[in-house]
Amino acid sequence: MDEFELIQRFFVRADEARGVTTGIGDDGAVLKPDPGCELISVIDTLVASVHFPNDINAADLGYRVVAVNLSDIAAMGGRPRWMTLALTMTESNEKWLSEFAEGLHRAAAEHDVSLVGGDTTQGDDIVVSVQITGDVAEGAAILRSGAAAGDTIFVTGTVGDAAAGLELLSAGKPDEYLSSRFFRPTARVDFGQSLAGRASAAIDISDGLLGDLKKLLYSSGVGAEINLDNLPISDALASSFDRDVQRRYALSGGDDYELCFTAADDALPDVSELRVTAIGTVIQGDRLVCRDANGIVEYDDSGYRHFQ
Amino acid sequence: MDEFELIQRFFVRADEARGVTTGIGDDGAVLKPDPGCELISVIDTLVASVHFPNDINAADLGYRVVAVNLSDIAAMGGRPRWMTLALTMTESNEKWLSEFAEGLHRAAAEHDVSLVGGDTTQGDDIVVSVQITGDVAEGAAILRSGAAAGDTIFVTGTVGDAAAGLELLSAGKPDEYLSSRFFRPTARVDFGQSLAGRASAAIDISDGLLGDLKKLLYSSGVGAEINLDNLPISDALASSFDRDVQRRYALSGGDDYELCFTAADDALPDVSELRVTAIGTVIQGDRLVCRDANGIVEYDDSGYRHFQ
Repeated sequence: MDEFELIQRFFVRADEARGVTTGIGDDGAVLKPDPGCELISVIDTLVASVHFPNDINAADLGYRVVAVNLSDIAAMGGRPRWMTLALTMTESNEKWLSEFAEGLHRAAAEHDVSLVGGDTTQGDDIVVSVQITGDVAEGAAILRSGAAAGDTIFVTGTVGDAAAGLELLSAGKPDEYLSSRFFRPTARVDFGQSLAGRASAAIDISDGLLGDLKKLLYSSGVGAEINLDNLPISDALASSFDRDVQRRYALSGGDDYELCFTAADDALPDVSELRVTAIGTVIQGDRLVCRDANGIVEYDDSGYRHFQ
Repeated sequence: MDEFELIQRFFVRADEARGVTTGIGDDGAVLKPDPGCELISVIDTLVASVHFPNDINAADLGYRVVAVNLSDIAAMGGRPRWMTLALTMTESNEKWLSEFAEGLHRAAAEHDVSLVGGDTTQGDDIVVSVQITGDVAEGAAILRSGAAAGDTIFVTGTVGDAAAGLELLSAGKPDEYLSSRFFRPTARVDFGQSLAGRASAAIDISDGLLGDLKKLLYSSGVGAEINLDNLPISDALASSFDRDVQRRYALSGGDDYELCFTAADDALPDVSELRVTAIGTVIQGDRLVCRDANGIVEYDDSGYRHFQ
């Protein structure tokens, strides 16, 4: 099977695609942006044995590599539209490819995203990059830099589940719910769009709540006080670990793909369908202070950092 | 050096960038498309020891991975605007990174392209993907599918040089000019833009002239007759190999990143600055016939195909 056949067979879908003049099969895709919109462009890579276990289910990998990019679009308040794929694989295995493509298209279809181009190559390891272009009304993108002293800090969903799920899996004690939060993260795309024009700043939690919040604070030139008693912990996480371990996962576990955002209280959108928790307050200065009922808690584990 | 520092140090440039509302440093880039334009999106990956020698100069790699994507934009008649980078590297080596970034930015700057985002990861091999978004006047993109019987078939520059250069290098008999055609390919961006609205079809020559021309013919539902005596061969290639070997490189060597395009004769743009050669004619049917002064020549080497 050559690359042309491979792409036709596994990656081309006949669905009517929004704003796609020419999709897969030419030197490039031709796309028609909506008037009055700005574009949002994101790219993220997953590398075997660094970002996922080598024996990952191919459908989970396909789903996950799209979801992590959707999450970046969500953090900007954008609507995801078109994606391109760069897939380096160890061999051209039809079963693996079919499953990978199924997971990829499933995550894309959940948010009406079209695969419009890609490149498949062979290498010694699986390396998958997905690039997504989205759009947002002109001037409405949510940046990391807009948080102001007095804003409330919120986080969506629950945090710490993905990292805990992966660690339990490695330890041979898998928890189905927690594992699913790693392999099939829920990008908060619709909620992110509802934040555009209402949140003062946002970031998605890929490297851990504390580390990613620090990036937001740094960009905004502010500090924060966090109440650790308010961290949103799932029942599954709470029932598997004691409080200190729960907190460690919640603060620096990473891979959650929830949104951390800041807003003036009265700007908080209706959140009836998604758990959204106020965890602290933006303050002047550059300190990030963690408290609980017993006082200040010190953490210097700032989350996942590459190349340390 | 963590990823944040790495990106700030090597990849963020202070240049004023066209149409970039928010560049590197947020969850995604915010970009402002021009009214009346469609977008063109391309992505291409280079894998160590598959697409380039392991000991490649980092600046050449950075240059080349941009150029191969610029070439795809050129083949669509587009103007390249914004690029994202997915770089998987074996270690965080400052000298290597600095050189890689220099080559990358040089190729981008030649066509006023801004690096607006990226992801750096660590793996066992170097895998580099670049995605470029360009634009083109609405409806003016050149597809592979527009060639019609009677059109003349053209190719820019000379063909076969890059593959010959690489083979001479591997054989320990490097030719400086031919090697440079592999390591620093010249994407025909300005010429590609001048073809928009004038060429009936175009493709860039990445996999070899014959193989890529076949893709164009297949998309257009036509055949072609090529005159091998008209193949544009550089002096360097001509002086290094006999005629049959020159032809083999020219027809199926790959990595040339020249444009092959079709046009009605009178539609050919002014080509005073770039060598453009008529090599044949589009015919009805689906055959690709190669001739020279002695009659029909049979070739079944259709160029580089992945996973065979």
